[in-house]
Amino acid sequence: MTEHSSIKTIGVLTSGGDAPGMNAALRAVVRTAAYFGLDCFGIREGYNGLIQNDVLKMGPRSVKNIIHRGGTILKSARSEEFRTKAGRQKAYDNCKALGIDSLICIGGDGTFHGAKVFYEEFGIRVMGIPGTIDNDIFGTDQTIGYDTALNTAMEAIDKIRDTATSHNRVFFVEVMGRDAGFIALNSGIATGAIDILIPERKDSIEDLFATFEKAEKAGKTASIVVVAEGEELGNIYDIAKATKNGFPEFDIRVAVLGHIQRGGSPSCADRVLASRLGYGAIVGLMKGENAVMTGMISNKIAYTPIEEAIKKHNEIDKDLLKISEILAL
Amino acid sequence: MTEHSSIKTIGVLTSGGDAPGMNAALRAVVRTAAYFGLDCFGIREGYNGLIQNDVLKMGPRSVKNIIHRGGTILKSARSEEFRTKAGRQKAYDNCKALGIDSLICIGGDGTFHGAKVFYEEFGIRVMGIPGTIDNDIFGTDQTIGYDTALNTAMEAIDKIRDTATSHNRVFFVEVMGRDAGFIALNSGIATGAIDILIPERKDSIEDLFATFEKAEKAGKTASIVVVAEGEELGNIYDIAKATKNGFPEFDIRVAVLGHIQRGGSPSCADRVLASRLGYGAIVGLMKGENAVMTGMISNKIAYTPIEEAIKKHNEIDKDLLKISEILAL
Amino acid sequence: MTEHSSIKTIGVLTSGGDAPGMNAALRAVVRTAAYFGLDCFGIREGYNGLIQNDVLKMGPRSVKNIIHRGGTILKSARSEEFRTKAGRQKAYDNCKALGIDSLICIGGDGTFHGAKVFYEEFGIRVMGIPGTIDNDIFGTDQTIGYDTALNTAMEAIDKIRDTATSHNRVFFVEVMGRDAGFIALNSGIATGAIDILIPERKDSIEDLFATFEKAEKAGKTASIVVVAEGEELGNIYDIAKATKNGFPEFDIRVAVLGHIQRGGSPSCADRVLASRLGYGAIVGLMKGENAVMTGMISNKIAYTPIEEAIKKHNEIDKDLLKISEILAL
Amino acid sequence: MTEHSSIKTIGVLTSGGDAPGMNAALRAVVRTAAYFGLDCFGIREGYNGLIQNDVLKMGPRSVKNIIHRGGTILKSARSEEFRTKAGRQKAYDNCKALGIDSLICIGGDGTFHGAKVFYEEFGIRVMGIPGTIDNDIFGTDQTIGYDTALNTAMEAIDKIRDTATSHNRVFFVEVMGRDAGFIALNSGIATGAIDILIPERKDSIEDLFATFEKAEKAGKTASIVVVAEGEELGNIYDIAKATKNGFPEFDIRVAVLGHIQRGGSPSCADRVLASRLGYGAIVGLMKGENAVMTGMISNKIAYTPIEEAIKKHNEIDKDLLKISEILAL
Repeated sequence: MTEHSSIKTIGVLTSGGDAPGMNAALRAVVRTAAYFGLDCFGIREGYNGLIQNDVLKMGPRSVKNIIHRGGTILKSARSEEFRTKAGRQKAYDNCKALGIDSLICIGGDGTFHGAKVFYEEFGIRVMGIPGTIDNDIFGTDQTIGYDTALNTAMEAIDKIRDTATSHNRVFFVEVMGRDAGFIALNSGIATGAIDILIPERKDSIEDLFATFEKAEKAGKTASIVVVAEGEELGNIYDIAKATKNGFPEFDIRVAVLGHIQRGGSPSCADRVLASRLGYGAIVGLMKGENAVMTGMISNKIAYTPIEEAIKKHNEIDKDLLKISEILAL
Repeated sequence: MTEHSSIKTIGVLTSGGDAPGMNAALRAVVRTAAYFGLDCFGIREGYNGLIQNDVLKMGPRSVKNIIHRGGTILKSARSEEFRTKAGRQKAYDNCKALGIDSLICIGGDGTFHGAKVFYEEFGIRVMGIPGTIDNDIFGTDQTIGYDTALNTAMEAIDKIRDTATSHNRVFFVEVMGRDAGFIALNSGIATGAIDILIPERKDSIEDLFATFEKAEKAGKTASIVVVAEGEELGNIYDIAKATKNGFPEFDIRVAVLGHIQRGGSPSCADRVLASRLGYGAIVGLMKGENAVMTGMISNKIAYTPIEEAIKKHNEIDKDLLKISEILAL
Repeated sequence: MTEHSSIKTIGVLTSGGDAPGMNAALRAVVRTAAYFGLDCFGIREGYNGLIQNDVLKMGPRSVKNIIHRGGTILKSARSEEFRTKAGRQKAYDNCKALGIDSLICIGGDGTFHGAKVFYEEFGIRVMGIPGTIDNDIFGTDQTIGYDTALNTAMEAIDKIRDTATSHNRVFFVEVMGRDAGFIALNSGIATGAIDILIPERKDSIEDLFATFEKAEKAGKTASIVVVAEGEELGNIYDIAKATKNGFPEFDIRVAVLGHIQRGGSPSCADRVLASRLGYGAIVGLMKGENAVMTGMISNKIAYTPIEEAIKKHNEIDKDLLKISEILAL
Repeated sequence: MTEHSSIKTIGVLTSGGDAPGMNAALRAVVRTAAYFGLDCFGIREGYNGLIQNDVLKMGPRSVKNIIHRGGTILKSARSEEFRTKAGRQKAYDNCKALGIDSLICIGGDGTFHGAKVFYEEFGIRVMGIPGTIDNDIFGTDQTIGYDTALNTAMEAIDKIRDTATSHNRVFFVEVMGRDAGFIALNSGIATGAIDILIPERKDSIEDLFATFEKAEKAGKTASIVVVAEGEELGNIYDIAKATKNGFPEFDIRVAVLGHIQRGGSPSCADRVLASRLGYGAIVGLMKGENAVMTGMISNKIAYTPIEEAIKKHNEIDKDLLKISEILAL
């Protein structure tokens, strides 16, 4: 690693919606940096901390006892000021004053967009780490926090199923995913949902009704329908109301899982993924990677230009859609 | 137990909102009945099953492998027909035909009310077992399902706190409890909520605002307010809106925990409580108790007239309210 | 509370085996002390910290974000030196120098014994808070950590039952409880164990064999036997071996749950109990209580002389033993 | 799918050590078979059920409400008789009598070995599905049950860490994995273990001691060492004893996690994986695949000759070993 000399001081921040495993990624960044003799600054509250110079020097002991904790000890925020040229100039001036030559940004789409602009304007090295429960980032098989969110959603739906079954009810359950149906599709399959409504597929109320009819014929007395937040058929309450009109005999309930999906202690898969990506980010920077995101593809570290990571999208597995239908009844 | 001879055949049903531990109570009823040589019929879907003669003979093996399962294998329902004299007559005729001389009703207020009327009209022995997450039944220190619901609510709020802390947010979290603030008060204390709004206390928006001001002064950057469903200050969304008006700088979110609180595998305390009450119900009937509810008071089985169990209410512990305020900040 | 003036400075420590909820108790002590205008020192690693003057001044913010964490942030230890007069003298000198007039000791039997001797020798006010998973302290219905340990043991046994049932196996599961069978009895009832071996009861291998025979006749194909650590019938491996000799056709496994029972995030009941006892300890001291332990009896704070708390023992509920037998098969 | 006509009746069994997700795989097999109009027999207790003709006809409703349950409703066993030619002959005769033309075997190495021999001798179609917590099967990125076992081990070690930290202790924790260190390596990384001892790497006591010295220098006061069952350095108790000799000042404890790792409700990843593999197994058979195992490689269904699946082995990721060392301190 001859390029070692070219980077000396890392800045690391978490930005956008928090995700379980961000702390594990931060720990990996800080400890790998220390291992390779690099200095490291933690930046508080995303890009805001860079603008306000709210930073702390971090060493291996700064990140002890955090691998299992949800949220992010650096805190996260969406920064309005960083969207302005003036804000980014301040951020750059602070980087220069601190000697930060490379910036590691843990977050999602919005975070990466900020990093890209910052790099283009000021030439500072940037490296993305995908931390978001939505799994909607190209260039990695999974994002940090996604696996934990899946388990949280699934466990909540398991509980709801207990009461659905006891009362012969129909439950519409909304899970997170404004633009992507990954959480809905996978948690829906895992809980035996009879239908799963996601933004990637055109769903119609007729199809939903047809499914209810099939379910009744098959002898199912209780049903779960999982709905992604961003589903275009309409608001979950509207869908529930339309269903009540179509099937007045149904005892229907709506459950919106909400923010519990963002928190909690990260799963083993998320902790290991975060550890690998944090390590990969430092090693990538040392090898000269720049303006890329560290991801895992087929169980190997892969670097994808940030531009691509933002523009392209992981597609929902067609097979999985079919499987969800076949197995539901 | 000389009265043994006086009862021969038990009917058992679960009714009203389901609660974790109902299966454990059912198991205890069935196995204790078998132990004492009594016959036992399980009645499906609450009083509806009694009216429609939807019953099954149950023995020790009928209840294997259910002690840990949420919901109720007998299913539960609210029965409109049982509110009519004609409905109850059918129910009684079925009891007679089956030889059921004693009816064990697992549920809450509504369930017990039905049992009381049934007893008064037809003289059939009835015994209540308090199964409801709300803990709003007099005559027992805790109801079956309450401890599990507390843990479910607490774990959900723990997750929400991760994201609240990461983003310096204020979260209003609604927990179940239409008439009783037990879940709110205890889960609020357990999660360090800065305020807890419950129906038993007159809360004012001014008090809430004063608490927010104290929290700010104390240096708290993120806050949880737990709100019972039945809080009279208003809908949780209205309270959140009023707070936003008072503190425009707050980043406020609302989370409604909803039906996850009814499901899930029962806690150890709930399984043991359910086992004791199920046993106590049979023993009580054998001893001649009638039109009573089996509860645990100070760790001892106690029988309370159903009439009292419905009319009186456990009071919120004043000390606990004070403790919640002192410890929050 | 006119006695307020008589105490000014609290010292608080955790000692002996750690228990989930100790942090919640510490938080309650520190915040209640602050509320009443008292100074508070946290003492690290039990009595050792008192001897070595390893203390820190604590205020409301020192205990933020710990209510949900297992273990104890003050750390715990068993102190050999405190068993010597010389050690205690050093401890007392440090108390004097720091102005500590009252010492709150969170722990079990051993901890309380130390507190008692310290009080008798130097007249310093002492107050115990029962923090131990074993529930073997007189003067409180439950000790802090016990409810969490029950749930941890139960969840582990639930998992073991999955594999026991799938393979038609007999599992002997050892749970903690050197002198007391509370964990064994309650987790055994909650998991449908066919037998429960505890130090409080004379168990014989013949009785165990008779139970296995009944289980076979009843058609049970898989069985769990829960054994308390301190069971006098012998080591769990010996009991398993004897069973194999008696029933060579059995597929027998042994599982020792061990230290997982001491850790983990405290349950809601434990967090609330710890909060109440921490509050009660300060209020008790202010009211002039001394050389007592704060406990909860029948849902009310109660102060019991430390001497009694150590000498007497909560008895296993005879009813519960009977229930465990009746419900197992 | 023109080959559809060539298969008509499926037999499905679970064999070897049980793994969470086996029920989800069974459900997927049965429902996919029904969807394509195939008949399906469930075979009880692995190959034993085939020999003893202990089978049941299964349709979509036979597998309801099992996707979330640990263990296997078909039960599992290791069959001595199936290792004999005579036993296999009986099994084949039963298959013939039932019309079973294709056998789906859910299990690990031993299960697949049996399937291979059965196929070679009698020409019956066989299809493997990898269900084992050990992840030691070639031809799939993950086996069913592995992800759940990782989370179970991790959560147990998280609890142990609470008490390790509170007491400044060194814990040696044994996890499952007789021949493979996957569980140890990943749960060790996820819990910040300072060292991880696995069969795939030659570990020496000197290296372990050097790690302890580094940990002490780094200021770590409590440490976890994760040891795979099959570690060749010796029994975990011997390693602990040797460490005590080398570092007499250490307060050392041993924890053997044992069978809890086999049970529990499957994780979301395991339920989805099991659903995909169960579906893939039927589709593969219909496409003419034979004597292969259905796996997921890089998120796509892949069929690998059973012979290869047994002979080859997934290798431990060298990067991961390095990462575990860098991040530990």
